[in-house]
Amino acid sequence: MATRSETDSFGPIDVPAEKYYGAQTARSLMNFKIGGPSEQMPIPLIRAFGHLKQACAIVNMKYGLDKTVGDTIVKATDELIKGDLDEHFPLVIWQTGSGTQSNMNVNEVISNRAIEILGGEIGSKKPVHPNDHVNKGQSSNDTFPTAMHIAVAQEVNTCLLPGLKILHGALKEKADEFADIIKIGRTHTQDATPLTLGQEFSGYVTQMEYAIERVNAALPRVYQLAIGGTAVGTGLNTYKGYSEDVAAVLSEKTKLPFLSAPNKFEALAAHDAMVELSGALNVIACSLMKIANDIRFLGSGPRCGLGELSLPENEPGSSIMPGKVNPTQCEAITMVAAQVMGNHVAVTVGGSNGHFELNVFKPMMVANVLRSTRLIGDACVSFTRNCVEGIVANRETINTLLNESLMLVTALNPHIGYDNAAKIAKKAHKDGTTLLQSALELELLTEEQFKEWVKPEEMLGPK
Amino acid sequence: MATRSETDSFGPIDVPAEKYYGAQTARSLMNFKIGGPSEQMPIPLIRAFGHLKQACAIVNMKYGLDKTVGDTIVKATDELIKGDLDEHFPLVIWQTGSGTQSNMNVNEVISNRAIEILGGEIGSKKPVHPNDHVNKGQSSNDTFPTAMHIAVAQEVNTCLLPGLKILHGALKEKADEFADIIKIGRTHTQDATPLTLGQEFSGYVTQMEYAIERVNAALPRVYQLAIGGTAVGTGLNTYKGYSEDVAAVLSEKTKLPFLSAPNKFEALAAHDAMVELSGALNVIACSLMKIANDIRFLGSGPRCGLGELSLPENEPGSSIMPGKVNPTQCEAITMVAAQVMGNHVAVTVGGSNGHFELNVFKPMMVANVLRSTRLIGDACVSFTRNCVEGIVANRETINTLLNESLMLVTALNPHIGYDNAAKIAKKAHKDGTTLLQSALELELLTEEQFKEWVKPEEMLGPK
Amino acid sequence: MATRSETDSFGPIDVPAEKYYGAQTARSLMNFKIGGPSEQMPIPLIRAFGHLKQACAIVNMKYGLDKTVGDTIVKATDELIKGDLDEHFPLVIWQTGSGTQSNMNVNEVISNRAIEILGGEIGSKKPVHPNDHVNKGQSSNDTFPTAMHIAVAQEVNTCLLPGLKILHGALKEKADEFADIIKIGRTHTQDATPLTLGQEFSGYVTQMEYAIERVNAALPRVYQLAIGGTAVGTGLNTYKGYSEDVAAVLSEKTKLPFLSAPNKFEALAAHDAMVELSGALNVIACSLMKIANDIRFLGSGPRCGLGELSLPENEPGSSIMPGKVNPTQCEAITMVAAQVMGNHVAVTVGGSNGHFELNVFKPMMVANVLRSTRLIGDACVSFTRNCVEGIVANRETINTLLNESLMLVTALNPHIGYDNAAKIAKKAHKDGTTLLQSALELELLTEEQFKEWVKPEEMLGPK
Amino acid sequence: MATRSETDSFGPIDVPAEKYYGAQTARSLMNFKIGGPSEQMPIPLIRAFGHLKQACAIVNMKYGLDKTVGDTIVKATDELIKGDLDEHFPLVIWQTGSGTQSNMNVNEVISNRAIEILGGEIGSKKPVHPNDHVNKGQSSNDTFPTAMHIAVAQEVNTCLLPGLKILHGALKEKADEFADIIKIGRTHTQDATPLTLGQEFSGYVTQMEYAIERVNAALPRVYQLAIGGTAVGTGLNTYKGYSEDVAAVLSEKTKLPFLSAPNKFEALAAHDAMVELSGALNVIACSLMKIANDIRFLGSGPRCGLGELSLPENEPGSSIMPGKVNPTQCEAITMVAAQVMGNHVAVTVGGSNGHFELNVFKPMMVANVLRSTRLIGDACVSFTRNCVEGIVANRETINTLLNESLMLVTALNPHIGYDNAAKIAKKAHKDGTTLLQSALELELLTEEQFKEWVKPEEMLGPK
Repeated sequence: MATRSETDSFGPIDVPAEKYYGAQTARSLMNFKIGGPSEQMPIPLIRAFGHLKQACAIVNMKYGLDKTVGDTIVKATDELIKGDLDEHFPLVIWQTGSGTQSNMNVNEVISNRAIEILGGEIGSKKPVHPNDHVNKGQSSNDTFPTAMHIAVAQEVNTCLLPGLKILHGALKEKADEFADIIKIGRTHTQDATPLTLGQEFSGYVTQMEYAIERVNAALPRVYQLAIGGTAVGTGLNTYKGYSEDVAAVLSEKTKLPFLSAPNKFEALAAHDAMVELSGALNVIACSLMKIANDIRFLGSGPRCGLGELSLPENEPGSSIMPGKVNPTQCEAITMVAAQVMGNHVAVTVGGSNGHFELNVFKPMMVANVLRSTRLIGDACVSFTRNCVEGIVANRETINTLLNESLMLVTALNPHIGYDNAAKIAKKAHKDGTTLLQSALELELLTEEQFKEWVKPEEMLGPK
Repeated sequence: MATRSETDSFGPIDVPAEKYYGAQTARSLMNFKIGGPSEQMPIPLIRAFGHLKQACAIVNMKYGLDKTVGDTIVKATDELIKGDLDEHFPLVIWQTGSGTQSNMNVNEVISNRAIEILGGEIGSKKPVHPNDHVNKGQSSNDTFPTAMHIAVAQEVNTCLLPGLKILHGALKEKADEFADIIKIGRTHTQDATPLTLGQEFSGYVTQMEYAIERVNAALPRVYQLAIGGTAVGTGLNTYKGYSEDVAAVLSEKTKLPFLSAPNKFEALAAHDAMVELSGALNVIACSLMKIANDIRFLGSGPRCGLGELSLPENEPGSSIMPGKVNPTQCEAITMVAAQVMGNHVAVTVGGSNGHFELNVFKPMMVANVLRSTRLIGDACVSFTRNCVEGIVANRETINTLLNESLMLVTALNPHIGYDNAAKIAKKAHKDGTTLLQSALELELLTEEQFKEWVKPEEMLGPK
Repeated sequence: MATRSETDSFGPIDVPAEKYYGAQTARSLMNFKIGGPSEQMPIPLIRAFGHLKQACAIVNMKYGLDKTVGDTIVKATDELIKGDLDEHFPLVIWQTGSGTQSNMNVNEVISNRAIEILGGEIGSKKPVHPNDHVNKGQSSNDTFPTAMHIAVAQEVNTCLLPGLKILHGALKEKADEFADIIKIGRTHTQDATPLTLGQEFSGYVTQMEYAIERVNAALPRVYQLAIGGTAVGTGLNTYKGYSEDVAAVLSEKTKLPFLSAPNKFEALAAHDAMVELSGALNVIACSLMKIANDIRFLGSGPRCGLGELSLPENEPGSSIMPGKVNPTQCEAITMVAAQVMGNHVAVTVGGSNGHFELNVFKPMMVANVLRSTRLIGDACVSFTRNCVEGIVANRETINTLLNESLMLVTALNPHIGYDNAAKIAKKAHKDGTTLLQSALELELLTEEQFKEWVKPEEMLGPK
Repeated sequence: MATRSETDSFGPIDVPAEKYYGAQTARSLMNFKIGGPSEQMPIPLIRAFGHLKQACAIVNMKYGLDKTVGDTIVKATDELIKGDLDEHFPLVIWQTGSGTQSNMNVNEVISNRAIEILGGEIGSKKPVHPNDHVNKGQSSNDTFPTAMHIAVAQEVNTCLLPGLKILHGALKEKADEFADIIKIGRTHTQDATPLTLGQEFSGYVTQMEYAIERVNAALPRVYQLAIGGTAVGTGLNTYKGYSEDVAAVLSEKTKLPFLSAPNKFEALAAHDAMVELSGALNVIACSLMKIANDIRFLGSGPRCGLGELSLPENEPGSSIMPGKVNPTQCEAITMVAAQVMGNHVAVTVGGSNGHFELNVFKPMMVANVLRSTRLIGDACVSFTRNCVEGIVANRETINTLLNESLMLVTALNPHIGYDNAAKIAKKAHKDGTTLLQSALELELLTEEQFKEWVKPEEMLGPK
């Protein structure tokens, strides 16, 4: 492999000639051989850095950065944002806890690409220096958390919220479609009083509606950016107005309402906003687990389960049992839910362990939040398209079960009291008879009264 | 022990004569010998049930409940709310997952106490029946989650938020008090550029400010009440307007903005609102862990630590080391933080495991949320009164450390560039000299320039 | 309330005349108002301290402790161990993270009770001084973790392991009882190939068998005691042989194989052994969740569920639905499982946060481990006695479902290949017919062949 | 892109001509667009499948599989094991919870590669059928968990245990190297009695020694293989001795002591062994967090921290602060620790959610266990090579701090009693003097006595 020599304050080091990254990236590759390529820093974070470096260059030109240098940085970051430079970011999550080496990786790649554009010698740091120009008015300690917030906000808006809305919409359509199907309710997994299948699905609809609310409730603090805090939050080596200017440029470019964080000390030393958003994702994981569990149990069978729903058949279900079809989308999304709950604990542990002016669990925290965000967003779409939209209610089975249930007896409470109603139900259960038979044998009411009082279609709401 | 016989649909059973509870409570005591008295259902939940049963009685009178019966239920619940009947609630958390037995415990106690007030025979269920009167228009499935929300909302408002505000205020005062104390910053636990001690504390202030915001952001869904959903969410055996009426009575009595939950199916089958609030508490746990860790490390010593802060001495610190004083309040509150993180996982697991029309992890979930709420609230007060308010800055130590630091070199970046500044710092570190000496030896700037450029007091913000 | 004055190195303080505890306990009550009485230090820990202080006194007499003083300490600790002094231990978990104040509470109570026995003046510290005599050769830093290990080892042996064995035994009996009942298997909650109900239960039996193995695998490190490490692990102020002697006395008294920890620095600064045992409890929680979930789903119904099992009816199931019976024991034990998972995270967070020579999350950690231990032990007994032992197989339902299943088709794979077998199953599913009908219509085999090849009773094991 | 048509029981589907995978893999790619390439099934699992399929083919030849077919499957699996076929496994973790599609991916690739070797038409399923030959005597339900156990056992033995041993060894060397350096102890982060730096490190050594013990204690249940259970655990469509034979072949090939699981129902329906191993990893995460935190705090400075240790300087530490060096290896490994704790919760949630005959969180569970295993193993090596081995004790600083400490006063307890010793320490602290000065002023002992009694070098162990 062809190499060239790059230098940092530790001295020279060989880097692959075909890569734009420089000495600090190369050093990190040597020092952190942890987990291999699958553990690389998430691409959304890298591209968020592109946005940030571009915004800083634009603002720095206002405060004295050479226009040619600044404009070329903007060009290089355009490429970075588009994804053209992804291959130049080989560093793993498991590095400096401030993400310093990834910030330098970004600085080095932009610097070298800008040098190249300007016809300079790659690695010479001239005329575009990774620290003095690309990183001007910045520190890893404020850029990395800024990139964290940008990346997360973008993934939330481009993947998570759209996914939640798609699932919400599909569930809503099913709730409407199933509005007239009366079915047995189940509490404690045991037969209970009836409701409509539409009502049952309306619970899921509400869960997803609140899921969206929960994410939105956490976003205001995600939109706060650390940039301008530099090394410890004071903003040393920046100018008054700098942090607000950068946030404004970012806001305009990304169409997201980013703001300069009111307190930069909190923004560097704690990542409560990440823990908070992760907490919202954790609630959503609980909601999805509930919904998907219900759907697979209601769809259990085909002959020996509850059988109230038919789920779409998307693939052969078994390598040994011919003809088997499984609720695989439910399984994928519940696995995602479990992962999100686990990621949340990782984020929590990282968030609780900041010290003094800096939390140094940054790469781990953002990697988990980005992963949870993406997994939920994608899984919601997959679950919607490949499962929810194709759910069919087995009206016949639903109706048969409804009419066999003993819990219709509850309708008798206001007429004959709880204790008498209990006697009817227990006798019917013991004898294997219907409620009517049992009621008549116990002489607690007439057949006419029974038929007047026990009507599933009148048990679906308050009077 | 004197006993009397009480009856439920399973038959007669002896209960202690001196207790108001009845057959179902007694049966639960026999069936759930898990964990002993320390595992009893939290008292705030029991009293919240008092509010709920009272509100239901008031509303039920509008819909036909006998006025004498209703008024007496109100009287009995007044006693329950005041705490006079606490000893009649012996059931543990580890029972039916819907809390049915605790709902019946409440029904039985109110029924018997009301019967007693009316001169009837305790245990006769006349003239006040636990199911037909006290539980009228209700189910465990909607009352228990309603009581969960009431109890949690009350604890949040009477214990958690006041505690957070007290801590926030005390930190704010310290941030102001320390506004002029310039100290060394620390990132990665290593020396960094300076900030004021007030700035450092301002980060904590912001964390607590956001803590309050986070709790408030979760409350809207806690204020939604399940009451009126009855068995499966349909509201069977209630009247139109019933749920709204009960919520209104509760809102008036408790001065908290309770509302009838828009979707009762969600309110019974999922407890996402509990997971969400627990998530907010989890963020606060992270904040408190960070703050308390910082304070104990900054206060470490007295001779061999960082020694920047002196913490109040509240008790002898060691049973073997005479004269030792320890940051015990920091220890208590960080233990609380760890507990809250654990409770959050328990709540999450419970919240994810609902099935069909009912989540049956209710008692466990509410017990954890109430415990976290109380522990944080109390710990904040204890931490404030016994630690934060008495923190003293050791100005001399702080100043000595500041002036020894090498990271003041950062102020030279804009003047001589990052690479030259690095050379100065590394040489000073290696030689054990000051930055000035090192800079002069390297002939990178003059003493005058150094003194003009390196001023800690000018490194505290953007220019 | 009558009081007397007690003194510590901070000065005099009033304590209730009727209590044996002294100044440091009283001071802790003032300084740590966190959570109230329900948050008191677990009693098993207090009594474990009784054992420890007694053993230390016995060994100290060998190394020069006055015999009268020593013997009287032994007498006082006998009372403590028996539980006669429980009321003198009011401190909460949320105190010094080393448990110093609880160690001093123990020292004070024993000192004052011993003084009383010897006719001295309570509070005078003469002739039995809480530090110089009761705490002789000890520090909170080694006694508290020693008491942690003693208490946990005792609860494991007296509550947890017996509970696990009872459940294991009951499941084994059911597995044997159900050995000949052929039923449909379910994978992905969908119909699968058959097995016997006994085989299904044998999986649970194995889970519980391994549960016991897992606990036993963790115990060796729980049996290691920190005593003799004193303040930082060096054993300052003890004698050579002291730690081994104390462990030997404890081992003899408790009949548990306690040993002196080979490395006292680890034993004070880390509580990995607690995290490890908690991890074993966490696995058991998973096992119990699986088993109890299966049992409640298999017992779901009575008319609209799977209905393969009937669970004992222990109490009325619903306050609104007459005659309802619920799997309440399954609910209690799954709630316990969720709590144990949460407790495990609290223990993990505490265990990861030790610093230098001491972990200061001790009270929180031991409280969670003790709670998990007790809850699992108790819940296993309750679940066994009130559920497992009374499970009845509904042979008729089981048989009906078995014969309707389509997955018996799997038996045809070796004869006609997977693809042909799949065609038969899919056609039967689509047409709502039996496998035989479908097979004949597809002309893939004869009726005779079908009957020879598809025999559920021959699908229960390898050939 | 060139394609060919492949078929499964759902019909034909186009697949890329250059890939060996078939219809079911292609279908899964369409149905599960969740997370992208970074979420692909872990390679160690794929290769473990190679071992398994090979072993099954070898054993199947004993039971009638055509020798040419069998031998060619062996050849194809050799390529798979070597990693030559990695690119043919594009499926993500988020698929069927039984991993059926990855099992079929393996079957398809082996089948097509074997067909190719034999000169047949790829996609024709002849002469090597993915189900009838490659999957012969197998089900996804037993092969996937078998591959889970193989992959995990291999990673544990090739990455985790070697990593733990390397770190253990390096810490042991440091403990020996530092055996004579007396330093101040710290409890509660506050000054305490002295110990040697070697003693301090010996605690870490013991933690790592027990880490290895913990992993080994969990392995016996990881070595149990599900193979032979087929669809539901009964072993339908296998032969007596089959499971034992396959385990024996695997054991011989991998040199790991695999055994046929005694109970296959447990082996399919629960993955307690994964939760258990993850629990061991969770303890190790706690240990590593403790050790790395200690090292970075002891190495804090260079001028304003504890400064007792110098850590190797591996890279420039800051993009803004010139000359800064940070404990980056500590940061990487503590981030790994947090991730492992989170992964453990994901594994726990998955492990608790099995239903009936099958746990369907398999891919998620194994992905987390493999990730934790690899991350810890790699991080231990990186931490050792780039940090631990290069740690230097700053003897001068250590000595200065030791002699300033007030806690040497503890040595006076046996001579003048705890209360008097406390007076000396408190007075010295208040006055800012030495212990000797304070003691003399209080006239509690003579200078000679002080010098005889207070000798740090005699405070390092029992007498």
